[in-house]
Amino acid sequence: MPVARILTGIQSSGRPHLGNLLGAILPAIALSRQGGHESLYFIADLHSLTSIKDAEERRANTRAVAAAWLACGFDAEANTLFVQSHVPEVTELAWYLNCFTPYPMLANAHSFKDKRERLADVNAGLFVYPVLMAADILLYDVNLVPVGKDQVQHLEIAADIARSVNHLYQQEVFVVPEARVDEAVMTIPGLDGQKMSKSYGNTLDVFAPEAELKKRVMSILSDSTPLEDPKNPDTDITARLFALVADPAAVAEMRQQYLAGGYGYGHAKKALLAALLERFGPARQAFDRYMADPAELDRILQRGADKARALAHKRLAVVRGVMGF
Amino acid sequence: MPVARILTGIQSSGRPHLGNLLGAILPAIALSRQGGHESLYFIADLHSLTSIKDAEERRANTRAVAAAWLACGFDAEANTLFVQSHVPEVTELAWYLNCFTPYPMLANAHSFKDKRERLADVNAGLFVYPVLMAADILLYDVNLVPVGKDQVQHLEIAADIARSVNHLYQQEVFVVPEARVDEAVMTIPGLDGQKMSKSYGNTLDVFAPEAELKKRVMSILSDSTPLEDPKNPDTDITARLFALVADPAAVAEMRQQYLAGGYGYGHAKKALLAALLERFGPARQAFDRYMADPAELDRILQRGADKARALAHKRLAVVRGVMGF
Repeated sequence: MPVARILTGIQSSGRPHLGNLLGAILPAIALSRQGGHESLYFIADLHSLTSIKDAEERRANTRAVAAAWLACGFDAEANTLFVQSHVPEVTELAWYLNCFTPYPMLANAHSFKDKRERLADVNAGLFVYPVLMAADILLYDVNLVPVGKDQVQHLEIAADIARSVNHLYQQEVFVVPEARVDEAVMTIPGLDGQKMSKSYGNTLDVFAPEAELKKRVMSILSDSTPLEDPKNPDTDITARLFALVADPAAVAEMRQQYLAGGYGYGHAKKALLAALLERFGPARQAFDRYMADPAELDRILQRGADKARALAHKRLAVVRGVMGF
Repeated sequence: MPVARILTGIQSSGRPHLGNLLGAILPAIALSRQGGHESLYFIADLHSLTSIKDAEERRANTRAVAAAWLACGFDAEANTLFVQSHVPEVTELAWYLNCFTPYPMLANAHSFKDKRERLADVNAGLFVYPVLMAADILLYDVNLVPVGKDQVQHLEIAADIARSVNHLYQQEVFVVPEARVDEAVMTIPGLDGQKMSKSYGNTLDVFAPEAELKKRVMSILSDSTPLEDPKNPDTDITARLFALVADPAAVAEMRQQYLAGGYGYGHAKKALLAALLERFGPARQAFDRYMADPAELDRILQRGADKARALAHKRLAVVRGVMGF
């Protein structure tokens, strides 16, 4: 049996923050290094058009996301990293798949039903988004797609479409993909204690200049326990973030200081900033290097697109053949 | 002011019948010869996937439609004749346009509302079909689209999308197309007197072998007026079809014979067959020649696709630029 091909779509929503790094990028990079499978990673800039219309924002987001993955140690030679729109063949496949996707399947998708209250703001791209996602998967003969629980239904739609087409044409036109649901999704607290998310404006931008990062760390919420009193390291946001990024000995030490009292939140924030700068120092430097060298970034992404396009052309040739184009 | 560019989409629904010829193809060819504008004609095979899934049927339909247009004297050198799927860039543009098309605009389109009763049979391709049609138009900087009344709403959707994009990006990303509504649509009676239509199974297939054509002509419905009695040339289907294809002197003569009596429907049918073979004789021969020479047909369509693709690339470069791809 050939090795399984795994696909990961990366949101093209700007410079990744600490929550993206710890919750998604670093685990994905760890997985990509395990071997035993072939991995495709793409930056979903076509999908981003459903919400972002500004050209400079999209270009900057795409570059920043690519730079962040590479800066964190993603091996773009061993894997395939590309920008979705660099293989526009995916939109051709999406049209074919549209014609095999029952309207009610899309109308009943959670992602659409959640938006029924404000239909005037929903564009057709959002409505058929699961079909483009199916095309992303089926174009590259993908076996496994690691997804969060909220994406399981979209994976089922992709598998349903693949099965319908295979059944109708009585051959394996598409590999039927399977979801690999990651149950243990890490939730990273934001500056205000809610889940860290760009939409809450509570993120720590690890790749920001140091002064900006410092300002953000200093603005983490804390309670009004006096300096001399003991504090709770399990509920305080700074201590929780510190526990996620510092080494175990330092984390244990901070716990002691919290519980003992006489250790203020200001001290903890300084320690967190230092830990962030230490842990992500090399990545921050690499990020700046990639951002300062767009030609190198373009070269890497072009190479990825070439590899992806070779797969796409093979699959599209089969699809055009069985469908009569 | 540059000459207006006109676009005509040709349904890819099989060998054109007499109704298609008289109602659409011959008038379009006459228009294409008027000059003063630049005309693009495309065979809409991507649209056909919303209903036809069979590969051989689609390929045969596409070839037969192209052969019929050429056989009827369409000048593919002076104009641009191409197959929609040969310029798959249209699907890329359709994705972009999806993201600027409000969902309710599609949900309220007549073409979709008419199908609300049987939603399970509606595929997503049918739902977003007006967006692909908009892409067909906007990709080629089209000024004018001749349409029947049933397509006016789709033209308005295309113009709305073009205006939205132009407004948002504050520049003329797209030419805003106008519909040219042909009020005087010719309705050709079928063998049973209803409008001639493939879906009614009442067509006269002008390009069929002679024996088959004869059989169809002989099966035209007629009433039971005895041979010797006068007959009504304005209501009899054979006489009405004869009036559409024979020369005026012959039509006047048949009228006299109908009104005088002693002239049977069998005579009229023989006269109709002879008139069809005379009028469409050269086209029938040319059709057979094209169908027997797929390489020549492919060459002509390839040339058309090359011309269309040059326009498409120019427009897509602008679109990608303003949207940030």
